[in-house]
Amino acid sequence: MIIALDAMGGDNAPQDIISGAIQALEEIPADVTFKLVGDESLINLELNKHNVDLERFSIIHTTEVVTMDDPPTAAIRGKKNSSIAIAVDMVKKGEADALVSAGNTGASVACCILKLGRLPGISRPAIATVIPAPHGKFVLLDSGANVDSKPEMLNQFSIMGEIYAKVILELDSPRVGLFSNGSEDGKGNEVTKATFKLLKENNYNFIGNVEGTDLFKDKVDVVVCDGFIGNLVLKSCEGIAKGISGMLKENIKKKQVRKVGYALSKGAFDELREKTDSRATGGALLLGVNGIFIKAHGSSDAYALKNALKVAYELTLKEINKKLIAGIEQEA
Amino acid sequence: MIIALDAMGGDNAPQDIISGAIQALEEIPADVTFKLVGDESLINLELNKHNVDLERFSIIHTTEVVTMDDPPTAAIRGKKNSSIAIAVDMVKKGEADALVSAGNTGASVACCILKLGRLPGISRPAIATVIPAPHGKFVLLDSGANVDSKPEMLNQFSIMGEIYAKVILELDSPRVGLFSNGSEDGKGNEVTKATFKLLKENNYNFIGNVEGTDLFKDKVDVVVCDGFIGNLVLKSCEGIAKGISGMLKENIKKKQVRKVGYALSKGAFDELREKTDSRATGGALLLGVNGIFIKAHGSSDAYALKNALKVAYELTLKEINKKLIAGIEQEA
Repeated sequence: MIIALDAMGGDNAPQDIISGAIQALEEIPADVTFKLVGDESLINLELNKHNVDLERFSIIHTTEVVTMDDPPTAAIRGKKNSSIAIAVDMVKKGEADALVSAGNTGASVACCILKLGRLPGISRPAIATVIPAPHGKFVLLDSGANVDSKPEMLNQFSIMGEIYAKVILELDSPRVGLFSNGSEDGKGNEVTKATFKLLKENNYNFIGNVEGTDLFKDKVDVVVCDGFIGNLVLKSCEGIAKGISGMLKENIKKKQVRKVGYALSKGAFDELREKTDSRATGGALLLGVNGIFIKAHGSSDAYALKNALKVAYELTLKEINKKLIAGIEQEA
Repeated sequence: MIIALDAMGGDNAPQDIISGAIQALEEIPADVTFKLVGDESLINLELNKHNVDLERFSIIHTTEVVTMDDPPTAAIRGKKNSSIAIAVDMVKKGEADALVSAGNTGASVACCILKLGRLPGISRPAIATVIPAPHGKFVLLDSGANVDSKPEMLNQFSIMGEIYAKVILELDSPRVGLFSNGSEDGKGNEVTKATFKLLKENNYNFIGNVEGTDLFKDKVDVVVCDGFIGNLVLKSCEGIAKGISGMLKENIKKKQVRKVGYALSKGAFDELREKTDSRATGGALLLGVNGIFIKAHGSSDAYALKNALKVAYELTLKEINKKLIAGIEQEA
């Protein structure tokens, strides 16, 4: 298996991207190799900082980079030799089995959809994010590939999300919920109400509407929503989690006795951090394109990037797209 | 001043509603009286549990109740003698200056809009929620009165939100942001992009788009969004905050040394809880109706309800609706 890595994408590229790839060497079987796409001299500079055997790496040199501020069309129109564009080309040509990037979401998604094409029967691909919760994990999609999703699109998201949850969460029968402003059947905006009817007809595992307070309560495994909404909710949850943790730290610092107390109960915090660490999943799959693209968070560090590579490996091994194609056909 | 209270609305009615009203006696000046609307025998049963002077209370008897599962039209069509319908009538007739209810949001909002009417120039009222953050507080609106808001509506929300933040957060020049999936100017779904242009033209304090991670970072004082989205984000934040706190408690219970540590650092947790307690604000104003309606959370306990009554008192005293009318006229 060959995994292509956009070495230049993300806030901490290329340092953390390369460090992540090196960490992955130990956790991904030896027959998997990595193609690092980006500026050769910068990549070598990073590789040489580490004392490891480099034979599983090869470098595909390019100097062009899509930045975080570039428009979604950047990798298609202006920067055709950018690291993301070339990495996607490699997947298309069969020179790589999967691709990981922590770069500009809009640009990488647009580039993948245009170049790789969509799976049969899918009108719009969606980003599926695996989210940690007290009871385990759930999948939320779309978390940012589409805005203004139509009911038919959301219906497809629900089918893809269900198949994805079976593979990634290893569930036999994932509970699929429609994200709405109340759990009652009639709740929702116009799109949600129309989608509710479609899901009721088409999706055997549809459990109805779910609201924000349901997400972290073991009520649902697949949360279906528009990408604009998914983005707002995910980032707000990230924001409040950081806010709470920051406030607590400040409060603890105020008194010596609290610092002592914290030191004694530190294990409890470490376990919480480990369980809620979004970096542990590392990356989200763009579901519905004809190729495996794992989008890592823009702020990914080496640990997150390593885990994104592991997700790419696992999903390639499990032939996620074959399963998606079969599942979509069955539903059609 | 007279404040009407829907004694039958909310998950914990009438017990906690009446207890909250009794707690409010000490914190709201003696010239303010309360009209408790609901089943007289049930209300008296609760009042008699407390050893207090009841002369500031009067009871408006009715046995009909709008439940949490009733449709939004319940208080207008079917249950015309429900506690919420009668309480709204009292505000309309000038028999009360403000109204507090923890009952069915859809039904109480619809009843207020229909019976009280809207402020001049306002097409759709919005619920404004004050949210605690590490740096202080911010206002989010609409948090649930409208779904599928049009750009013109969101523009009005921004004007009302700004005036509200001046009064409730005591800010001279609140920063108004549009909730979007990125802080860059071009980000958003169709409605957001069209709203951006309107706010840019009309609102002097508009700072541009804000994303989920900005909310808790002292970047914005008034967050403008559609009510469907506001509801999803608020409930998700509530869900994750409870999830985090629940997980931490479980982890602490696992070992004796952690329990000891927690006991020593407990003050830090108490301060966090106090600062992030949504019950401290107690209720959200329905901005844009011709009357003061404070919507308390459905799960309000006595403490939350007392604080909702205090908000009703404060906003009546500060003549919020006069300020809204003047502000809207100025912008028009």
